[in-house]
Amino acid sequence: MVTKHVPPEWAFEFHGHRCPFMPIGYRMGKLALEYLGVEREKDHGLFVFAEIGIGHPQTCFVDGVQAATSATYAKGILEKTFYGKLAATFYHPQKGAVRYSLKPEFVDAMGKYEFFAYRKKGVEPSQIPPNVVDEVTDWIYEQTDDYMFKVEAKPDFKYTPVKGSFNKNKCSICGEYVFERYLRTKDGKPVCIPCSGY
Amino acid sequence: MVTKHVPPEWAFEFHGHRCPFMPIGYRMGKLALEYLGVEREKDHGLFVFAEIGIGHPQTCFVDGVQAATSATYAKGILEKTFYGKLAATFYHPQKGAVRYSLKPEFVDAMGKYEFFAYRKKGVEPSQIPPNVVDEVTDWIYEQTDDYMFKVEAKPDFKYTPVKGSFNKNKCSICGEYVFERYLRTKDGKPVCIPCSGY
Repeated sequence: MVTKHVPPEWAFEFHGHRCPFMPIGYRMGKLALEYLGVEREKDHGLFVFAEIGIGHPQTCFVDGVQAATSATYAKGILEKTFYGKLAATFYHPQKGAVRYSLKPEFVDAMGKYEFFAYRKKGVEPSQIPPNVVDEVTDWIYEQTDDYMFKVEAKPDFKYTPVKGSFNKNKCSICGEYVFERYLRTKDGKPVCIPCSGY
Repeated sequence: MVTKHVPPEWAFEFHGHRCPFMPIGYRMGKLALEYLGVEREKDHGLFVFAEIGIGHPQTCFVDGVQAATSATYAKGILEKTFYGKLAATFYHPQKGAVRYSLKPEFVDAMGKYEFFAYRKKGVEPSQIPPNVVDEVTDWIYEQTDDYMFKVEAKPDFKYTPVKGSFNKNKCSICGEYVFERYLRTKDGKPVCIPCSGY
């Protein structure tokens, strides 16, 4: 089946440039929501563990995941695992967990497009000719879900977010508010981590 | 000066719900771009260090920062510092660094609105009556930048991202691609971190 799930224009504006990976992640996120039988996450009920790390390319797909699912970094429900892999696990406490990863054969086939020659030369995505970006992106839209994604049910996956607290206090040095979990003590007084020197 | 910088409708769709914090972060991000004299970051040239952590409220403002600046989590140019503070430092290697934080007096005044009574009872943002959300959000739009934000130049701020690499190899156990930084070795063969058991 070919379910393009083309991102809305705002997702490209959010991301800042056009590249093939944001759309791949958008599609991954949409498929994961369908698999779990849930809608875009309004609040804090869907958790995403993206297996990307630092110092490697192709991480952009996770912005597509954010845009598709609203499991966003700032809501505290999206994290990187630092495995350096093009995959993500989606977990909903009432619906279970599923892992989506890019199949190596798909990654290899995609890697032959000219877009990647530009990237390996150090050209930033916004500076790559639009027809070169469109060429690979349009090719991806024509590929089947099955060709692109390995899908694994994860029935034993468990995750419990930390218990939250609204308590806060002012740092006795800088005067700024600090939420309690991050308050430290110095000379018997409450301080923030930067002021503590710890 | 009152520079509302009202987020576009897509930023609310991205975030998943309406709350006062996403708009606060959007405004913070827009002001920081203006301060540094840069546009929305198309690629990887602006770095944001958001001082939020886990297990506390009001982190949503960082989604507004993402939406305003395109310094996104997936592009590897936005990180949390885990200080539990409502602040962020914006760094552009050619333009310098600036830190924006919410003033305690503003946080105190805002905290009197009914929205926060709902949140402290455990009501998720999407379930709070729209007029209650609008009440505090509209009030914020009328406040001056100076009343809301402490702005600090950070002339000595430095940050160097890790050197990236496009190299990757397949894990000898699961067969999935792993970028080199995260490849491990087990029994003399390349493996991914989950397969390694390390």
